[in-house]
Amino acid sequence: MYRFKNLTRFTHRTATKFTPTPFSLRHLATAGDAVAPPTAGLGPTKKPDKPRVVVLGSGWAGCRLMKGIDTSIYDVVCVSPRNHMVFTPLLASTCVGTLEFRSVAEPIGRIQPAISHEPGSFFFLANCVGLDSKNHEVHCQTITDGLQTLDPWDFKISYDKLVIASGAEASTFGIKGVKEHAIFLREVHHAQEIRRKLLLNLMLSDVPGVSEEEKRRLLHCVVVGGGPTGVEFSGELSDFIMRDVHQRYTHVQDYIHVTLIEANDILSSFDDRLRVYATTQLTKSGVRLVRGTVKDVQPKKIVLSDGTDVPYGLLVWSTGVGPSAFVRNIDLPKAPGGRIGVDDWLRVPSTPDIFAIGDCSGYLESTGKPTLPALAQVAEREGKYLAQLLNKIGKEGGGYANGGGDMELGAPFVYKHLGSMATVGSYKALVDLRQSKEAKGLSIAGFTSWFIWRSAYLTRVVSWRNRFYVAINWLTTFVFGRDISRI
Amino acid sequence: MYRFKNLTRFTHRTATKFTPTPFSLRHLATAGDAVAPPTAGLGPTKKPDKPRVVVLGSGWAGCRLMKGIDTSIYDVVCVSPRNHMVFTPLLASTCVGTLEFRSVAEPIGRIQPAISHEPGSFFFLANCVGLDSKNHEVHCQTITDGLQTLDPWDFKISYDKLVIASGAEASTFGIKGVKEHAIFLREVHHAQEIRRKLLLNLMLSDVPGVSEEEKRRLLHCVVVGGGPTGVEFSGELSDFIMRDVHQRYTHVQDYIHVTLIEANDILSSFDDRLRVYATTQLTKSGVRLVRGTVKDVQPKKIVLSDGTDVPYGLLVWSTGVGPSAFVRNIDLPKAPGGRIGVDDWLRVPSTPDIFAIGDCSGYLESTGKPTLPALAQVAEREGKYLAQLLNKIGKEGGGYANGGGDMELGAPFVYKHLGSMATVGSYKALVDLRQSKEAKGLSIAGFTSWFIWRSAYLTRVVSWRNRFYVAINWLTTFVFGRDISRI
Repeated sequence: MYRFKNLTRFTHRTATKFTPTPFSLRHLATAGDAVAPPTAGLGPTKKPDKPRVVVLGSGWAGCRLMKGIDTSIYDVVCVSPRNHMVFTPLLASTCVGTLEFRSVAEPIGRIQPAISHEPGSFFFLANCVGLDSKNHEVHCQTITDGLQTLDPWDFKISYDKLVIASGAEASTFGIKGVKEHAIFLREVHHAQEIRRKLLLNLMLSDVPGVSEEEKRRLLHCVVVGGGPTGVEFSGELSDFIMRDVHQRYTHVQDYIHVTLIEANDILSSFDDRLRVYATTQLTKSGVRLVRGTVKDVQPKKIVLSDGTDVPYGLLVWSTGVGPSAFVRNIDLPKAPGGRIGVDDWLRVPSTPDIFAIGDCSGYLESTGKPTLPALAQVAEREGKYLAQLLNKIGKEGGGYANGGGDMELGAPFVYKHLGSMATVGSYKALVDLRQSKEAKGLSIAGFTSWFIWRSAYLTRVVSWRNRFYVAINWLTTFVFGRDISRI
Repeated sequence: MYRFKNLTRFTHRTATKFTPTPFSLRHLATAGDAVAPPTAGLGPTKKPDKPRVVVLGSGWAGCRLMKGIDTSIYDVVCVSPRNHMVFTPLLASTCVGTLEFRSVAEPIGRIQPAISHEPGSFFFLANCVGLDSKNHEVHCQTITDGLQTLDPWDFKISYDKLVIASGAEASTFGIKGVKEHAIFLREVHHAQEIRRKLLLNLMLSDVPGVSEEEKRRLLHCVVVGGGPTGVEFSGELSDFIMRDVHQRYTHVQDYIHVTLIEANDILSSFDDRLRVYATTQLTKSGVRLVRGTVKDVQPKKIVLSDGTDVPYGLLVWSTGVGPSAFVRNIDLPKAPGGRIGVDDWLRVPSTPDIFAIGDCSGYLESTGKPTLPALAQVAEREGKYLAQLLNKIGKEGGGYANGGGDMELGAPFVYKHLGSMATVGSYKALVDLRQSKEAKGLSIAGFTSWFIWRSAYLTRVVSWRNRFYVAINWLTTFVFGRDISRI
């Protein structure tokens, strides 16, 4: 992530006024160079043009916001390194072929069609590399991975309202080797990598010349982190092993094992009774639960803090998230935990027209409210709220830069937790409908929960097209088993 | 393809007898080293074990053969760098999202389930790197791409019958830069690369800072080769542009163009009337047909032999196939065109128990028969024939090494062409049911042909699962348009 290295320097010289020479293709001398001020871009809006909302990110928060923005009031410009939203709760299922990758990816152009055809609305495949709040501008750099004939180039976008929804980064707790050897489970390409590695290991372990010990190592799948992602992935893996490996990789079926490592309790946010149920269920499915802390990650083994060596063939890391380099370096007030600090209306105070939602934002200490958990549910609710707020501001004529500052904003954002769900494999799931860990309320586990889990997510999938595909994928997995072609 | 470099040396020292020390993991010192004799593997079969058929490759020929092999007579061992068969006639449709990648890939374990669970049948993800016909052995090296913690290792497999079905390589005619800058269209990963590049170019061309000229270059899709693959891909591209780009990438819709370059006539094997129809249809859909020969391929442009520069953003190369490095280097008699020479029964004469089918094989001059075209149809028919022949040999007790040499083999292989089909986009296709270019017979073009094209391929798709998915994909493309998420 070299492009963040020079961010501090960059934001310090933002007072310089750029001379826009639009449509000239700039080539950076070397990729490691400092990011120079961009020379092309979208300049400030002027009436009768619509005011411009710039959204950084295309996760739950950003996409829900874009969906809700009234495009008769605003032009929408989205800047993100990926052109789709990932339906994260179902990502674990794609690693083992229960679902296709395409079924959990929703193109942004379908979520907010205006970016495809409105003359002033755009999607830019780029990273935001700097913010010039004084001039109401963001500085961006294109993503050109895989296109070796084109260097990335810089451009700037003037915003009337800026929504930072750039999300968080997977936490590694400074443990050496995690980034090099473990795979996270946050993007579609992570799921693709896990799938390719799992299938490769299954095939390699069957080739003559592999020792028994090496076979056991190759087929040892280790998951670090016992939150919903880690538990759901372990459950999916054990389903895959019990049904598909036993049928399609008979030669090596006795060598494959799943271990879930967690420092504390698994699913700590769930009801005690549900946690016991999950533990029993996972153990029954052959998942080994290990309580431990990882000290070091090496290419073929991890070392726990008690000195135990755990050899692995596949290592999936899901120990939660922390602020990204972009958020750490940005020159805005911070909330506890290093997130961008917002007030009750999700505004970044003291800098006009900037809002932050989702995992990258948190309540400022001055609000007296606790930081909300990094959940899709929170991000989505914030996106929805902010879209309504921006629409209201726009309708009342405050949509342009520095407009609407002294407007009555209405009710602040209030988060109401609707409950948590997690599947543990074998057609079993947990549904915890209590509003907090201390509150009373319904919490159930088993097949009924699993049915609720599936139905709930199916209705949450954004488009009818993907809803249809997810249902079809589930049906074919049930009838034909999971797909095992390594493409 | 370094692993073929040392093949000659390797086959010359094959007289050395290996000392098998099974299940020891060998690491090659460096990837560029000569391939040393393997130390582990599957030794010769002995009664009461079943005789072993080793199949090199998992294309149309190899897979049809494996499907037809009677596994109560033989054990089947397949060696291939990919664990699935690609349904090549529908590959072009996956590049633009009409079909999902998974729908055209068929896992070998589904084609021949014995390799998944029979104790003596296997699939090995490996390349064959040498043949020791004297000792009835093949030498293989594992594929470990993407698994940096494991070096490839060598192993050997003793065969009773060896079927070489390793296919051919895309021809570049020695033109500089083709391998570096053009994308072929033969494997699923090629289609994935084309798709990613096309979507990336569409997005990049919309970013501020791109000159008009660069925009035109980025969105210029050039296809070299006017055979069925090139024509079908051009047709799919123009469908994608006319429907999906015009709807989803309105900002850049006027910049995207498709050019098809062919040195002679397009679809030269088809009826003249059909060729005229195809030309008219493609031109109507906006595909520019250029008659020319490519002299040089550079990162951003190709140079034709008349000196014209053709800037491109995406270059797809489909000018037919020629013998692969493995086939060129193997020490077996050759047919005209450099293919492995076979007799009327698809046997490699003078070396017992070796057969060759599909694009890698051709009739020896002594048979007086012409080389068959490199078509899925030919490969599939050969695979089917050889499976029956091997079953017959096995049933009569000649399945083991050096068995069945003086057996009556029955009718030789005769190829009867069933006709050719190609789609040109816009729900139009060509169906040429004549047995050869000179023969009389039915040849039709238009919507009816397109309907025949779709129905025929749908029935040819190997498994019910994929048949179902292809139908569903076609339906959703029709209803919702093509998917544009770049994952």
